[in-house]
Amino acid sequence: MTLFSTEHDQFRASVRRFVDQRINPNVEEWEAAGIMPLREIIRKMAKLGFVGLDYDPEYGGQGAEHLFTLVLAEELGRVDNGAFPMAFGVHNAMATPSLHKYGSHELKQQFLAPAMAGDVIAAVAITEPEAGSDVAGLKTKAHRDGDDWIINGAKIYITNAVQADWLCVLVRTSDEGGFKGMSQIIVPTDTPGFSVAKKLDKLGMRASDTGLLSFDDVRVPVANTIGTIGRGFQQQMEQFVHERMWACYSVPTTMDIALTRTKDYAKQRKVFGAPLSSQQYLAYGYAELAAEVDMLRVYNHAIAQAYTDGENVTRRATIAKLKAGRLARQVADWCVQVHGGVGYMEETWTARFFRDNRLLSIGGGADEVMLRVLSSMDGFA
Amino acid sequence: MTLFSTEHDQFRASVRRFVDQRINPNVEEWEAAGIMPLREIIRKMAKLGFVGLDYDPEYGGQGAEHLFTLVLAEELGRVDNGAFPMAFGVHNAMATPSLHKYGSHELKQQFLAPAMAGDVIAAVAITEPEAGSDVAGLKTKAHRDGDDWIINGAKIYITNAVQADWLCVLVRTSDEGGFKGMSQIIVPTDTPGFSVAKKLDKLGMRASDTGLLSFDDVRVPVANTIGTIGRGFQQQMEQFVHERMWACYSVPTTMDIALTRTKDYAKQRKVFGAPLSSQQYLAYGYAELAAEVDMLRVYNHAIAQAYTDGENVTRRATIAKLKAGRLARQVADWCVQVHGGVGYMEETWTARFFRDNRLLSIGGGADEVMLRVLSSMDGFA
Amino acid sequence: MTLFSTEHDQFRASVRRFVDQRINPNVEEWEAAGIMPLREIIRKMAKLGFVGLDYDPEYGGQGAEHLFTLVLAEELGRVDNGAFPMAFGVHNAMATPSLHKYGSHELKQQFLAPAMAGDVIAAVAITEPEAGSDVAGLKTKAHRDGDDWIINGAKIYITNAVQADWLCVLVRTSDEGGFKGMSQIIVPTDTPGFSVAKKLDKLGMRASDTGLLSFDDVRVPVANTIGTIGRGFQQQMEQFVHERMWACYSVPTTMDIALTRTKDYAKQRKVFGAPLSSQQYLAYGYAELAAEVDMLRVYNHAIAQAYTDGENVTRRATIAKLKAGRLARQVADWCVQVHGGVGYMEETWTARFFRDNRLLSIGGGADEVMLRVLSSMDGFA
Amino acid sequence: MTLFSTEHDQFRASVRRFVDQRINPNVEEWEAAGIMPLREIIRKMAKLGFVGLDYDPEYGGQGAEHLFTLVLAEELGRVDNGAFPMAFGVHNAMATPSLHKYGSHELKQQFLAPAMAGDVIAAVAITEPEAGSDVAGLKTKAHRDGDDWIINGAKIYITNAVQADWLCVLVRTSDEGGFKGMSQIIVPTDTPGFSVAKKLDKLGMRASDTGLLSFDDVRVPVANTIGTIGRGFQQQMEQFVHERMWACYSVPTTMDIALTRTKDYAKQRKVFGAPLSSQQYLAYGYAELAAEVDMLRVYNHAIAQAYTDGENVTRRATIAKLKAGRLARQVADWCVQVHGGVGYMEETWTARFFRDNRLLSIGGGADEVMLRVLSSMDGFA
Repeated sequence: MTLFSTEHDQFRASVRRFVDQRINPNVEEWEAAGIMPLREIIRKMAKLGFVGLDYDPEYGGQGAEHLFTLVLAEELGRVDNGAFPMAFGVHNAMATPSLHKYGSHELKQQFLAPAMAGDVIAAVAITEPEAGSDVAGLKTKAHRDGDDWIINGAKIYITNAVQADWLCVLVRTSDEGGFKGMSQIIVPTDTPGFSVAKKLDKLGMRASDTGLLSFDDVRVPVANTIGTIGRGFQQQMEQFVHERMWACYSVPTTMDIALTRTKDYAKQRKVFGAPLSSQQYLAYGYAELAAEVDMLRVYNHAIAQAYTDGENVTRRATIAKLKAGRLARQVADWCVQVHGGVGYMEETWTARFFRDNRLLSIGGGADEVMLRVLSSMDGFA
Repeated sequence: MTLFSTEHDQFRASVRRFVDQRINPNVEEWEAAGIMPLREIIRKMAKLGFVGLDYDPEYGGQGAEHLFTLVLAEELGRVDNGAFPMAFGVHNAMATPSLHKYGSHELKQQFLAPAMAGDVIAAVAITEPEAGSDVAGLKTKAHRDGDDWIINGAKIYITNAVQADWLCVLVRTSDEGGFKGMSQIIVPTDTPGFSVAKKLDKLGMRASDTGLLSFDDVRVPVANTIGTIGRGFQQQMEQFVHERMWACYSVPTTMDIALTRTKDYAKQRKVFGAPLSSQQYLAYGYAELAAEVDMLRVYNHAIAQAYTDGENVTRRATIAKLKAGRLARQVADWCVQVHGGVGYMEETWTARFFRDNRLLSIGGGADEVMLRVLSSMDGFA
Repeated sequence: MTLFSTEHDQFRASVRRFVDQRINPNVEEWEAAGIMPLREIIRKMAKLGFVGLDYDPEYGGQGAEHLFTLVLAEELGRVDNGAFPMAFGVHNAMATPSLHKYGSHELKQQFLAPAMAGDVIAAVAITEPEAGSDVAGLKTKAHRDGDDWIINGAKIYITNAVQADWLCVLVRTSDEGGFKGMSQIIVPTDTPGFSVAKKLDKLGMRASDTGLLSFDDVRVPVANTIGTIGRGFQQQMEQFVHERMWACYSVPTTMDIALTRTKDYAKQRKVFGAPLSSQQYLAYGYAELAAEVDMLRVYNHAIAQAYTDGENVTRRATIAKLKAGRLARQVADWCVQVHGGVGYMEETWTARFFRDNRLLSIGGGADEVMLRVLSSMDGFA
Repeated sequence: MTLFSTEHDQFRASVRRFVDQRINPNVEEWEAAGIMPLREIIRKMAKLGFVGLDYDPEYGGQGAEHLFTLVLAEELGRVDNGAFPMAFGVHNAMATPSLHKYGSHELKQQFLAPAMAGDVIAAVAITEPEAGSDVAGLKTKAHRDGDDWIINGAKIYITNAVQADWLCVLVRTSDEGGFKGMSQIIVPTDTPGFSVAKKLDKLGMRASDTGLLSFDDVRVPVANTIGTIGRGFQQQMEQFVHERMWACYSVPTTMDIALTRTKDYAKQRKVFGAPLSSQQYLAYGYAELAAEVDMLRVYNHAIAQAYTDGENVTRRATIAKLKAGRLARQVADWCVQVHGGVGYMEETWTARFFRDNRLLSIGGGADEVMLRVLSSMDGFA
């Protein structure tokens, strides 16, 4: 009994082809430019049926089951940078799940459907300059004025910041404090008062446009609220589970490619009169890492299956996020090391790989946040 | 879609009851005695249908699918020492798979059926004083004399050594050297010339009788050969896969119990004016380990499922063995540490737990052997 | 410029001779007995001038500088178990520094002088069943009755418990709570009301007699107070620095011997057709550990030198204790692993080495206490 | 007894002033430019007496003892990038020790003296595209033509490549192979046939000009040979010891500054309603790393002292290099992590710190080469 049907396999082949033909040939250019033409790429992907896989066809989704999303993410792990899978994931799996699940019919027609068609780009804005991974500490405020919200505050480290057409923003809509009284609100980026205060220059993920966002009396209809007013924190916690799943699903593929490339390098590289791969210390290092990668892959599959079966996957998605972040760092560090001086050069793939893969332990909730969530779920502390 | 049916759940409950009522109350006594009454216990287990689960009913098996073996092992992970699951595993899953798969009808009637009934105890004898985990280096020799083999040599670190009624022995039956020319032969322990030269005193697993075996012109029929003469190494490699699976299947249960006990201790223990569990450093340590345990559990399930589906699980069983050995050590070390002085006392469960769980990285092929196998399978080196 | 003079070297040789001739030949017997004849051994050592090296000759000390204590500890690291260096250290460096520094002339004549002569054995009693490494949480109480203290309470994990003639006990002498209102009091073990409630059976350090002590209206003169009434906590914190120094000083020697024995084993042991030592993975593992051992040795020397120069060595002694505990565990674990099955046998030195060396990260303040002290000294948190 | 005299302290203060006033204010500009004006800076340093500290005054050295070099390196650890200390170290401590020790009077007058005056810049060229850290595998060849060498080959990852006025090049001067028949030859970079084939773009150390060098019939006098023809490998091995010392000496300072900055950040940053520094997990992480840093500092001091005393410091310099590389990586990784999203931004110091500090485990002999050297020196394998 395998997890994947022939249909999944065909879908996988079709995504792989797209990555090889339409994405990877452009990566170097996008990295140099510090931005990717997301609208253009995602529109193509939407036409191929790669966007909103497990969403309702009424709003541009594909009505497929969740395993297709797993397959998609695994194949996007073949992309030659970390920025594209992240940017696509933000659009597809981090900014839209709450809207899909809790949004009104009108809101979904207005915002979800065009996003799923690739006509507009979505982003999600949670983190604030003062709050970091501590979502309960955020301060951006929406106060009500008749049928409108007036939003003031700032959001930082927002992926797709420059290109996004609308944002799923988490703000305080009451003074209750802590995790109470927050709401998720859709903010079109052409609303007066909204601006990208700064495009950020990052250690890695350089092809992704990341920004500091400013909200200065930004007025949007109260009808732009996703789901229940005051339930934003809870809805976002749910949305985070999708974010964690997406973040982990592609990691085994990416790591396998890196390990294989490094193995190939070690086999052709000669040192001390023999191929570098004949060094047992390296061979065993490879075996350890390849073992961890396979364990993560199997774990991801179990999560995807459980989610498909309607189970609560919060704990396992949190574990996978933690482990994926750690493992990505270890593999990246090891690949650089085995390449030696070559590996330290920007012209070698390892340099970008090292820079890009440092992010996963920070973004989408830092490792320490995952540990906090887990020790709390497990009843320790 | 869960892996386990209602039938599996009922079986699990019945094994659990047996462990709680018939095994755990006797563990302290067995540990003090340095031996367990295996024949008595296994006979009871056979009557309850716990032995030879996925073996042919014609030879005392239960004709069940492999997932029942997984469930059995998981529940035996609840036993309060490591010695019993190991001793039972040797009898049930390490000494008999080759016999079941490759043995002649007569050999199975004579040896497998009574073992599955719990009337006789089986052991497997591979490791030699000079060869350790290097199976290709073993030297025990059987030379042919008419229809008999005459065996000379020694085997060491043999579990169930004192109690075994018969042994599945791997010996050289030709002079080809390396991994060629070996055979698996059944040797009844009442054969003249066979003796237990020494019962070994171990760091842990003290309730298990481990011995140094001596073969001095031990004469057994050539008909006692399992499968093909000269294919012993290959058959044993296959048998090792079962050994690795068994060794890993019980680990998540055992580790979960240890982590939970330690958590409970940390919650009631007060230090610095608060429960020990309020120390974030410990809480995060717990979360890390509990995460790893869950990943191993899921991986084990995938292995059991794949084996059931007829796939080759060698690589994954090898990975699981490696990871289980490492993880068992880490968890045991952590549990001692959190208990502090209490944890260093033999009257606390942690002391035996620490001693017992040091073995898994050594026995059944040391970690370094697993790394060797993996780096070779993966084509590195 | 070397740290050691010819005089140090001669002293080192003389201690080494004593270890080889008078201690190591008896270790197996003491381990089996679960106790060592401390009075007899320490009396011999006192005659050779090995006891109280940096103490005042007026009270039986040798009036030497601290580097002799370093040399003594390094050579006691050659002892074949961990129990003797620990037991001697308790007597020589953990139970007596406060008495030497803060005790009255009479108290030193009565208790320190005979201890330094080896006529009586000393122990130090801090840890309590409820408080563990949290010294500020201890509850044993002395209330004053005229010129006497009447002590009630319990102390646990006390080294030399069965043999000690007197104890340096830390008790509460007021109700201030926390680290205030404690005093160090000398309690002769023949005082009515004092008893060894239980001799404890430990994972390792088995030749050392460790006990649970009971104080039931134990009456001793207030004149038995060391230093200032109410300053016991502060005096004990100072005494702990000596404990940490002693605990670390012997570790590099002990680890070097273990690594060398393991190297020798690996060189004669054949696997896969070559000496085990030809496995690069093991060779590099050895190099890593030997490197750490040398770093600890140099660090110890710097601490001893700084202490001799009158500097405050608290931070460095705390770092050394932390690192020594971690390193001892790693080395012990590695030595067992390289020995494989042989290493798991109690007849091999590795088994006791593994059991004994698990203690250092727990006793004398657990690793977590060292981390707490350090992060507090460093102003983090 | 402290290692440092008042004179050392004054020297330290003067270097520190120079770093604060003349170097750090320019670092951002140099990083952006991808090059530093080495001649200008080093000339200033030479005037202040910072160059060639333990070299003969006859050739521009300061005639001071080695501890001044330690102090200089420690203070250069305060520089805000890794590139300057590295570039200066190449000039001062990696390209010139062989020349100083083995060079002829004329060669030292011609090349060493102007380098020590800062009038010309030196580099050392060992690594080749095909050989990496395996010095015995290098192929660049000098064949003799009368009184000249004619050199052909390539060298890669050469620091100061673009600016160097002369190179200390290691080449084959016979066909013996392996480590035999090599010589160290001084090559002025204005010699016809020499060229910088490529300036390399690196992951970090971006202000340092690193290059691929090409030697195409480069003719230099045989009199440019340093020391004995055919002893180049041995002389270079000695020169490497200086390289390792230099590489390690500055690391504790650099790490301390990074840890302190991160501590300061953690104290002002609020999360979960409290300073980030109140997270015990982070506080203990800090304590661990600060402990390791102090151990390395003490170890460096012991090396410097031993070198001053004329001892062979090869093993300890190799250990320090290994540990410094590992520790620099860990500290850099931790600092990024504690800063979270902020830490991933190029505008924060952590990004460059992370990129720069990845090199030490690769350059100057990779970690694996250090392990190889150590396990060989220790007689394992």
